[in-house]
Amino acid sequence: MDLTKMKNPQFLKDLNTDELEVLAAEIRQFLIEKLSITGGHLGANLGVVELTLALHKQFDSPKDKLIFDVGHQSYIHKMLTGRTDQFDTLRKYKGLCGFPKMNESEHDVWETGHSSTSLSAAMGMAIARDMKNEKHAVVPIIGDGALTGGMALEALNHIGHEKKNLTVILNDNEMSIAGNVGALHNALGRMRSAGKYNRVKDELELLLKRIPAVGGKIAQTAERVKDSMKYFMVPGMLFEEFGFTYFGPVDGHDFKDLEENIAYAKKTEGPVLVHVITQKGKGYMPAESDKKDKWHGVGPYKIDSGEKIKPANAAPAWSQVVSDTLEAIAEKDNRLAVITPAMILGSKLDKFQERYPERLFDVGIAEQHATTLSAGLATQGMKPFLAIYSTFLQRAYDQLVHDVCRQNLNVAFGIDRAGLVGADGETHQGVFDIAFLRHLPNIVVMMPKDENECQHMVNTAIKYDNGPIAVRFPRGNGLGVTMDQGLSTIPIGSWEVLKNGTDAVILTFGTTIEMSVAASTALAKQGINVEVINARFIKPLDEDILHERMKNNIPILTVEEAVLKGGFGSSILEFAEEHNYHPTIKRIGIPDRYIEHGDVDQLLEEIDLTKEQIMIEINALLNGSNEKQKRA
Amino acid sequence: MDLTKMKNPQFLKDLNTDELEVLAAEIRQFLIEKLSITGGHLGANLGVVELTLALHKQFDSPKDKLIFDVGHQSYIHKMLTGRTDQFDTLRKYKGLCGFPKMNESEHDVWETGHSSTSLSAAMGMAIARDMKNEKHAVVPIIGDGALTGGMALEALNHIGHEKKNLTVILNDNEMSIAGNVGALHNALGRMRSAGKYNRVKDELELLLKRIPAVGGKIAQTAERVKDSMKYFMVPGMLFEEFGFTYFGPVDGHDFKDLEENIAYAKKTEGPVLVHVITQKGKGYMPAESDKKDKWHGVGPYKIDSGEKIKPANAAPAWSQVVSDTLEAIAEKDNRLAVITPAMILGSKLDKFQERYPERLFDVGIAEQHATTLSAGLATQGMKPFLAIYSTFLQRAYDQLVHDVCRQNLNVAFGIDRAGLVGADGETHQGVFDIAFLRHLPNIVVMMPKDENECQHMVNTAIKYDNGPIAVRFPRGNGLGVTMDQGLSTIPIGSWEVLKNGTDAVILTFGTTIEMSVAASTALAKQGINVEVINARFIKPLDEDILHERMKNNIPILTVEEAVLKGGFGSSILEFAEEHNYHPTIKRIGIPDRYIEHGDVDQLLEEIDLTKEQIMIEINALLNGSNEKQKRA
Repeated sequence: MDLTKMKNPQFLKDLNTDELEVLAAEIRQFLIEKLSITGGHLGANLGVVELTLALHKQFDSPKDKLIFDVGHQSYIHKMLTGRTDQFDTLRKYKGLCGFPKMNESEHDVWETGHSSTSLSAAMGMAIARDMKNEKHAVVPIIGDGALTGGMALEALNHIGHEKKNLTVILNDNEMSIAGNVGALHNALGRMRSAGKYNRVKDELELLLKRIPAVGGKIAQTAERVKDSMKYFMVPGMLFEEFGFTYFGPVDGHDFKDLEENIAYAKKTEGPVLVHVITQKGKGYMPAESDKKDKWHGVGPYKIDSGEKIKPANAAPAWSQVVSDTLEAIAEKDNRLAVITPAMILGSKLDKFQERYPERLFDVGIAEQHATTLSAGLATQGMKPFLAIYSTFLQRAYDQLVHDVCRQNLNVAFGIDRAGLVGADGETHQGVFDIAFLRHLPNIVVMMPKDENECQHMVNTAIKYDNGPIAVRFPRGNGLGVTMDQGLSTIPIGSWEVLKNGTDAVILTFGTTIEMSVAASTALAKQGINVEVINARFIKPLDEDILHERMKNNIPILTVEEAVLKGGFGSSILEFAEEHNYHPTIKRIGIPDRYIEHGDVDQLLEEIDLTKEQIMIEINALLNGSNEKQKRA
Repeated sequence: MDLTKMKNPQFLKDLNTDELEVLAAEIRQFLIEKLSITGGHLGANLGVVELTLALHKQFDSPKDKLIFDVGHQSYIHKMLTGRTDQFDTLRKYKGLCGFPKMNESEHDVWETGHSSTSLSAAMGMAIARDMKNEKHAVVPIIGDGALTGGMALEALNHIGHEKKNLTVILNDNEMSIAGNVGALHNALGRMRSAGKYNRVKDELELLLKRIPAVGGKIAQTAERVKDSMKYFMVPGMLFEEFGFTYFGPVDGHDFKDLEENIAYAKKTEGPVLVHVITQKGKGYMPAESDKKDKWHGVGPYKIDSGEKIKPANAAPAWSQVVSDTLEAIAEKDNRLAVITPAMILGSKLDKFQERYPERLFDVGIAEQHATTLSAGLATQGMKPFLAIYSTFLQRAYDQLVHDVCRQNLNVAFGIDRAGLVGADGETHQGVFDIAFLRHLPNIVVMMPKDENECQHMVNTAIKYDNGPIAVRFPRGNGLGVTMDQGLSTIPIGSWEVLKNGTDAVILTFGTTIEMSVAASTALAKQGINVEVINARFIKPLDEDILHERMKNNIPILTVEEAVLKGGFGSSILEFAEEHNYHPTIKRIGIPDRYIEHGDVDQLLEEIDLTKEQIMIEINALLNGSNEKQKRA
């Protein structure tokens, strides 16, 4: 059929299993083709084709609330709800979002991006439904990986207690973003192998009848044995203990099995968990046979061979530089332990893991635990390095405040994907970390200008012995600079003058250095000499440099790819206030709103964080104004 | 014995059960007497007297690591490790801390205050131990309430998977800080009633022998029945599913039972969980018979009657004003739902709960879930009000960023215990919330000058229909002002001039208003006329007022009981920078370090946040300097 004709999922109710299978095949083909050009979360979506069709057939969206945890597996849902024709723009600037988005469709009832939120959101919706005396289903769809996130477990505990009607779909693909860890995973494995209750129920009853009647103590014991049969009868004992009725395991690629179980679950009172087994990458051989989950989020690829089409930039990824540096440090320093919350591949730690399996700890999607576990390691003289994305470190804010910074422990943070991340969009932009770290006592925060400085900063972080320290670095590839052979350390709080000039000074760091230097070069041709400083320590500041410039009343422009409120620029304003200086200071950076998806360059243009804007601002500063300048 | 002679817990190894019981009684008597004067966490400590003695007898602290989750139950541990003579100074300025503190003793190996961190810390220590090839035990002691915190569950999942030696003591007092909720609680109840494996083991084997031999399918089924006996034999199936060996339930007030089980657990390989049943308040009748946990944290009381000695201030508590206001709103607005993470008593919601049980949701210690659940409610047009302490809201930072502010949902936050909290000290000071909220797009943050304004702000929060909104208010009692009869709303972003003056202006809010007005009054006598403004909206700012004052170049002093870095004062610096104003601005508030316990007045004195300092700063400002002024 013409998939772009799908406007409302109601049409699914008239399809029989054969027709559904044809549709599933067409959808798979569509996704494999479209994503080979745009890139996207291929593996996860190929795994839930049948599941999504079955859910939309059995439930009535948007009256019934389908909530996709993480949300990168919502592509089929988007197709069924009238967005098939927008897939050419997937994850592009002003195009279709890679995650659920309320302003795209009334069928997107909850926005996601970070994992493990769906159960809490669903519980809120179920409470609202009951308070309003409405009748509809609430259906969170959560992966086995996301289930290990603390807030999902908090929600399980609450949902199981309150006994509201709620249908949890556990999408168990035996693999979170990069393999899976944890006791829950092991328990799911036991459930998968246990088979289904209804297959053995009859046999069991027969057996129970054969237990001879006995008196006294033995009779009591027999009674308790019968009670214990619950465990036998229900492979999902773990969920039953949490207060859920368990259905499963269900074959997530078998429409009959799916529909039967979902229909039965719908009729069951109280919280229900349907355990669905799916295969990531199903139907596309290169992804299906992918054991390392390298088809989780992909760029363009050749359909026939599965060969990934590499970007032209051959510079190593920032994550790779960090990982390689850790490997070099591990050779000499046996205090080093590396912790990752389910991001071995994303943080490019696979090689490190191969070489030092006993020194790499993947704790699953569990940022809070990862952070405090690192603190625990540090209390014993170890040197933990927590590799974590900026946006996910948000999950561990209290642990930073309370366990790491307050105890002033030697935990090193490798904050990946700092700054704008591009296609993943507003839920993944790493733009808040400076504002939420800078006000914490004791922590050092730095950002390198290039991958060579990055390796020295990682080394500096591990060598540092005076408390917590973080090195933040951007998504993507480095600049292709020459790497020093040995590792050195950088004096804490020391900035670097990159370009001389006395008319004004630009204080900047990381990704915005390049545009700042370019602006300075262009301004020099106009006879304006602007100093550019690599403010590689965001905290503490280089006070010597600041005193010197401020005493001389040099106009200052701060440039940062991070939120302006409470950001680096604000720390410069605070420094001036604290020391009674009154230079003209102007800050540019990310305004007080969320930034959507798109190429980073397009996003920077949108928020006026460009070489051109820097030139405009410098000119205005020299005219004595630090008011926000409009582009010509 | 003379309890102050206890310097090292090694002496316990020589005591027999009778002697331990005598010691336990003496310790109880000591705590009941001391706390009747100082106040403190009486109930929790009375519950763990025997447990703490048994742990220190069975383990070798500090080689073995005893980690007290939350830590308010560490008093007996403090007594055993040489701090008995300091209990007169408990929770007082420069006195004994109410929580574990590394600088007090080498036996305090981990500092706590917030719940649910002990398992992660323990796992870090166990990993370190094994990497260093050391041999010692790691023993986190965690309550049943703290176990529902997401990070504890994350840790359980990881620990159960990694199989390291680790002895978790589950201190199950059937009551977290205020009753207990959740499926885990229910599961623990089943375990408690199930009795012990070894009591029924023999009977069970006898029974199994009586099952007749059968062939074919039935034989397979019988085999599986035998497997399922695991559930029957081990009441702690839930923990076994998580990969732990379960011991219990153990009578936490019976030394023989405690020592036997702990000794056995010590010898067991891999992660172990010892389920200990204790009674909060044990041995002091008023606390023992306390069903509502009103003896959790207490002020001074009369020992004989248990009567609490009330402070002279008869003004209602801030929390009570908020709760009463919610009750009044609930009468008319059926969209209101109140959410609390295990703080019904602390937030004084007991009366609300009695009247509107179906509109109050206690989710347990689960701040992340509480926040996103509120967001879920808001998507359905409800008006959730999340009552949460400032320090605990830190746990939900990502949920604020991602689920609430990004989706711009109408969630109202009642941020209790904002500012310095006093006796609970550095882990509980509510001083970061402005710095971590102010940079989030869409949110409104306000703080009232008195309890009358507070009720209108709560009403404003519920009436507000344009996104998230927070009202923060301090710990303790209000000012005793007259309360308006009806509820009104306050225009968003509107400040209030409290005192006129044209020489300088003080921008302040909440608790620091009183000292600011007093300073202005005193300065007036010196002929200096200082305007005082109630900057009750921290975000958004009152731009009209700011433009007016800054255009006229009036010197500005900002005063806040919150961290200076990225705080309210910084937002005033940012405003000046954004609009190209250059008034002299000076900020005072909380410096870049953690503030320990003590009376709030003593702490304010310590950090120079006083009427006198305000006068000094204003004088300096008028002399053209905003450099930090030393006291004379």
